[in-house]
Amino acid sequence: MPSEFELIARYFVQRNEGESTGVALGAGDDCALLVPSSGQQLAVSVDTSVVDVHFPAQAPAWAVGYRALAVSLSDLAAMGARARWCTMAVTLPEADEAWIEAFSQGFHALCAESGISLVGGDVTRGGLSISVTVHGEVPAGAALCRNGGKAGDIVAVTGPLGGGHGGLVAWQQGMRDLADPLLSRYLLPKPRLSAGLVLRGLANCAIDISDGLLADLNHLCEASHLGAELDMERLPLATGLEDLLGGEGARHAALCGGDDYELLFSLPEAFLTEAQRRLRECSLDLWPIGRLHAGAGITGVDEIAASGWQHFPGGAS
Amino acid sequence: MPSEFELIARYFVQRNEGESTGVALGAGDDCALLVPSSGQQLAVSVDTSVVDVHFPAQAPAWAVGYRALAVSLSDLAAMGARARWCTMAVTLPEADEAWIEAFSQGFHALCAESGISLVGGDVTRGGLSISVTVHGEVPAGAALCRNGGKAGDIVAVTGPLGGGHGGLVAWQQGMRDLADPLLSRYLLPKPRLSAGLVLRGLANCAIDISDGLLADLNHLCEASHLGAELDMERLPLATGLEDLLGGEGARHAALCGGDDYELLFSLPEAFLTEAQRRLRECSLDLWPIGRLHAGAGITGVDEIAASGWQHFPGGAS
Repeated sequence: MPSEFELIARYFVQRNEGESTGVALGAGDDCALLVPSSGQQLAVSVDTSVVDVHFPAQAPAWAVGYRALAVSLSDLAAMGARARWCTMAVTLPEADEAWIEAFSQGFHALCAESGISLVGGDVTRGGLSISVTVHGEVPAGAALCRNGGKAGDIVAVTGPLGGGHGGLVAWQQGMRDLADPLLSRYLLPKPRLSAGLVLRGLANCAIDISDGLLADLNHLCEASHLGAELDMERLPLATGLEDLLGGEGARHAALCGGDDYELLFSLPEAFLTEAQRRLRECSLDLWPIGRLHAGAGITGVDEIAASGWQHFPGGAS
Repeated sequence: MPSEFELIARYFVQRNEGESTGVALGAGDDCALLVPSSGQQLAVSVDTSVVDVHFPAQAPAWAVGYRALAVSLSDLAAMGARARWCTMAVTLPEADEAWIEAFSQGFHALCAESGISLVGGDVTRGGLSISVTVHGEVPAGAALCRNGGKAGDIVAVTGPLGGGHGGLVAWQQGMRDLADPLLSRYLLPKPRLSAGLVLRGLANCAIDISDGLLADLNHLCEASHLGAELDMERLPLATGLEDLLGGEGARHAALCGGDDYELLFSLPEAFLTEAQRRLRECSLDLWPIGRLHAGAGITGVDEIAASGWQHFPGGAS
């Protein structure tokens, strides 16, 4: 296996210095040097993807690289931040170089798609895991926090749910075609960065659905000191989910399955039309699924559908 | 084992919002929100510490936490940046909670010592490894880069060398007392943050010695397109190193052993006295060990002492 230096130089360095990228000095020195924009706050988050916990060992390397960045970018999306810079720490067993090349290409592909610059990395020997720290920018006071929900707000999501869990099940059943709508939801999630940007000024609170709808709605409710009433009839289900899991299984996956990476947010009813218009411009929908109210807890969910959600695999890490 | 949420809440969250910390929103939302200082560049670096690669599995948990942050902070020191914010991604096997508590205390202790705020974390299940991304600030144009060395510059270090490797040998021989000068150099390295700050405006280039003096001096020389002449007589050796390894072994460790985390830098001879004065105020010394010259490569090192340095363990990752 080539040395750390060779691997970094060959696969993980982007030449990205420039005024538009805000990179004064890229990878290759002790630190990268970045130029924050005036009047903006820096939004920072880190996520680790571990083999056989967050993705299967046999997943295509390209998808592993893409997905490791996607789950971190999803946190910037949920904050309404513009993606700027990231660092990646990857721990690798004695992997073959073809795997590393495909992995880095998946990572770089999403860098290009999302406009983020890779500015630092570390490559070490060990069990396969990838930690990505992302940096975004958001005007002071404009970030979409979890604690801003208001009683009476509409609760909505940016897309159909349950696909992350459905894709995992499809993978376990032997599906390997990344064009499959469920498998692609699981292995190639799309961080909703443009949704986060256009919801600024409209949404009162937001989170990305990584732990499952009920778990993440619960985070919003607790932070906002409110309760929520869900309308199960309006819950959008991922394409193909009912065929794969049946009606009850599909609703359970939409409520409790993790890894959907759609945004979950609340907004005043008066902003609903404008939010729908803006999201449509990003080729996204807005699905109202309930309402916040004074009180606590989540109602409107039948117990069977929600049973066991606290110990559901998607919520484990 | 408690859930990720419980672990993070119990051991890895600092309440550190405030104007002085530059933290507008700490851990607990999708992202932390930071307030960069006007006119400063952001220096960013990431380092991963893997069990049995970077530290022994039996190392005290407190030291593992301290050390994981120290090696990342050392990169800020080498850049002349002021430490501001960090994120930590830790992957843990089924560890006992006492271990995690001690680990977090070691990490937080160095946060307090260095004035850095922990603003985000991720805890996942897997083989023990810790990735720390650090963020520092440095006035635009003031950073100490690797490529600024000038022919004629004095090459100097901030402290005696070889202690990192000596401590590893001492550990392997059964030494367990963290007060031992060599063992503490290995397990509790001191990032030279104050040295980096006072060397701004004096040093032309700098790096921290993580891969070993020769390897890191080589990085400076290549980046600056220069050569260096070392004066082996002036090489400062860590206390106790000759007793442990003999004269030749000690010189070899000082040249090739990694993990010393002293700063290696070059500066014009005219600035030597001022640099010594400033470092003394930080309770540090300045040890001149050679000179940069037009040309390439490193001379003044006898071959036996330097033999095999490219494959020395310290340089492996």
